Amino acid sequence: MTFEITDEFLENLSELIISNNDKEITSLFSEVHFADIAEVLDEVNFDEAIYIIKLLDSEKTSEILTELDEDIREKILENLSAKEIADEVREMDTDDAADIIGELSEERQHRVISALEDDEHAADIKELLSYNDNSAGALMAKELVKVYETWTVAGCMRRIRGQAKDVTRVHSIYVVDKEDKLVGRMSLKDLIIAKSDHKIADICKAKVDAVNVHEEEEAVAKIMAKYDLEAIPVVDDNNVLVGRITIDDILDVIREEADKDYQMAAGFSKDVEADDTIWELTKARLPWLILALFGGFISVSVLGSFDGAMKNFPELFFFTPLIAAMAGNVGVQSSAIIVQGLANDSLKGSLFKRLLKEILQGFLNGFVLATLLMSAGMLFLGFNINLGITVAASLISVIIIASIIGTFIPIILAKKGVDPALATGPFITTSNDILGILIYFSIAKLVLGF
Amino acid sequence: MTFEITDEFLENLSELIISNNDKEITSLFSEVHFADIAEVLDEVNFDEAIYIIKLLDSEKTSEILTELDEDIREKILENLSAKEIADEVREMDTDDAADIIGELSEERQHRVISALEDDEHAADIKELLSYNDNSAGALMAKELVKVYETWTVAGCMRRIRGQAKDVTRVHSIYVVDKEDKLVGRMSLKDLIIAKSDHKIADICKAKVDAVNVHEEEEAVAKIMAKYDLEAIPVVDDNNVLVGRITIDDILDVIREEADKDYQMAAGFSKDVEADDTIWELTKARLPWLILALFGGFISVSVLGSFDGAMKNFPELFFFTPLIAAMAGNVGVQSSAIIVQGLANDSLKGSLFKRLLKEILQGFLNGFVLATLLMSAGMLFLGFNINLGITVAASLISVIIIASIIGTFIPIILAKKGVDPALATGPFITTSNDILGILIYFSIAKLVLGF
Repeated sequence: MTFEITDEFLENLSELIISNNDKEITSLFSEVHFADIAEVLDEVNFDEAIYIIKLLDSEKTSEILTELDEDIREKILENLSAKEIADEVREMDTDDAADIIGELSEERQHRVISALEDDEHAADIKELLSYNDNSAGALMAKELVKVYETWTVAGCMRRIRGQAKDVTRVHSIYVVDKEDKLVGRMSLKDLIIAKSDHKIADICKAKVDAVNVHEEEEAVAKIMAKYDLEAIPVVDDNNVLVGRITIDDILDVIREEADKDYQMAAGFSKDVEADDTIWELTKARLPWLILALFGGFISVSVLGSFDGAMKNFPELFFFTPLIAAMAGNVGVQSSAIIVQGLANDSLKGSLFKRLLKEILQGFLNGFVLATLLMSAGMLFLGFNINLGITVAASLISVIIIASIIGTFIPIILAKKGVDPALATGPFITTSNDILGILIYFSIAKLVLGF
Repeated sequence: MTFEITDEFLENLSELIISNNDKEITSLFSEVHFADIAEVLDEVNFDEAIYIIKLLDSEKTSEILTELDEDIREKILENLSAKEIADEVREMDTDDAADIIGELSEERQHRVISALEDDEHAADIKELLSYNDNSAGALMAKELVKVYETWTVAGCMRRIRGQAKDVTRVHSIYVVDKEDKLVGRMSLKDLIIAKSDHKIADICKAKVDAVNVHEEEEAVAKIMAKYDLEAIPVVDDNNVLVGRITIDDILDVIREEADKDYQMAAGFSKDVEADDTIWELTKARLPWLILALFGGFISVSVLGSFDGAMKNFPELFFFTPLIAAMAGNVGVQSSAIIVQGLANDSLKGSLFKRLLKEILQGFLNGFVLATLLMSAGMLFLGFNINLGITVAASLISVIIIASIIGTFIPIILAKKGVDPALATGPFITTSNDILGILIYFSIAKLVLGF
């Protein structure tokens, strides 16, 4: 656990690879956890990574492959033959195997699966590949411990010894009837504590949470988090047990979901990382920036349409960035809190109450900020009273309206089946910018009359 | 699992409470999962919640209490006597018990702990309360299955039957030496598969990941996620086994962390939810808004200092919101990607390389956007060529500089030990607004000469 990748380590490794000192390299990695080796492979150059992967034994490399950064794994898999990939996959649990094979081209998928010697493993992987992305079926593994309700505890123990070898972690033992339909669940602990001549049907818990194989992975994550489950059985439409999902897979779903929301809010159109290529990053950034530019262009036109004010009230134009920025900030706050509420299912009460609440909050925030702005403006910038009133009234109106828009856009998006996190991105900022400027100058026209 | 809180359910419940129909209420909840009951209590009014809590048996209510929204739990605990709280706590695992007692005033903490009959349970809770918030010690539970290395498999099975009753989920069996120092680990599965006369020392895995009791919870979360651990033992400075942390606690840590980052990015100064009071929400929103207002005020002054341009180049002022918005958007993108890279430990390479990468990306984005802007401006707004050049050159410069600032502020914050997520909030938008406007008008002055 205290393994640290140092520059010396990497230099040493490079030298060992150049001198083909395979024995030394193998021993260097012998005590290192596969997750750490994966990090080493992320750091070294590509030829070195291939060299190491081909050198280490497949039990270790198959684990390493599942941990690798997707970009690097893709490149490594390109350099392995279908046979070599099949050797790696053989050691993997079905869910990891399906994930990795799923990244290959369809033609290579077939070749890898055909190269698998274990027909059952191959069939399981094929089944997993057949489910929709983001469904429980795509997330689950076929490895599980299954017993029939008619068995006795003693018989069960005997047979479990066989099944459990294939299952990394036995969370629950699933109990099925003779048609393989899920009827109950028990823990290894229950089995150990029970008397050996008891029937499974008598000691298992009949109430068992399960998810349908077509359920969305996010819904599965919510259920598992809510009910504190560490594994959940997956059944088909006939309630036949087909797999199980464990909490570590859900951990990834939750993290990906959080990352996605965060990136959307920050204005990325797709999932990127700091170490992606400049080209990848630019492609992810440009769409929202172009939208924002387009919005900015509208704000230019709006401002242009008020150019009559320029002669008598030039100061008005100094305040546009301030008004626009406040509208954007308030809108992002309002939408973020709704997006989070939607994600946690914690939004309660009627839409009308929410509207009222936002208006009140907007007024409260707006009032404090407008007072500050007016005092500062009159003290330091020599506002006359009319300009002060205009700016203050605009600020309050803009904040209230930005709050309302920020609140309802995500709610509407969610109702339409669109990810509401979209709303916290540049979308809200841009539309609030435009609207803010429009409101500001409309109020100014009303008060100052130009 | 298909329990849904409907209006009819709530109405029916209210009526049953009014008519004191305790039997019916108990049977209504008898088949409902405690996490669902907690949601019901979040929905009903406070008196009803108290009524239900006092009615249900303590095995169920203790689970419900741990699931409740913190605000509601606080109010409920205020309405229970120390003795009643002790009755609830008695049924809880030590970590949940310590979390709940930790929410009470110090004086009530003492009274509740004194009211606990089980001295060992009380001592365990006291120990957990003594650790720093956010440390492994505060997160761990005392419940675990521990065996001595000198035992045989058969003896071990016998004694585990006793210990396991107190442990909801046996993830691992921890093996200790005679001084209670952690020396190994094995799974229930290993034990079941092993021959009964084997010694534990011979079959357990000697290599066991553990964390120190003073480790930060975020570090524990990273370790568990990286190594795919479902539980990790916690040791003190002498390697004595003192507790264990399970993955469900880590799930909460990860979610809280993600929520916190998201809220920071959205400009909240503290953790709030959509259903908090208007006053709570306003308090969380105002600090960043005031900072943004202050920044806006500076942008007003900057614009004011260029008022000489107003006579000959009024169009320049129409573009300020656009330039400011682009600077803000680009800055947020750049900082978000760094914040995420820092959170995942995935930032590699030197600062100089990163700087170069940001400049190149900024240039690429800026060039595309400036070309779009210039073409649109000349086509639709009748730009003259000098104004076009000014706006385009400014846009490119502003984007490059905003990228650099967005990249380095979070890096600098992280180096100074401040949460870098702070940088993605209104802080970056505001500073980039100001800088953007300054650069824009400086370039305009240079090109147009006013």
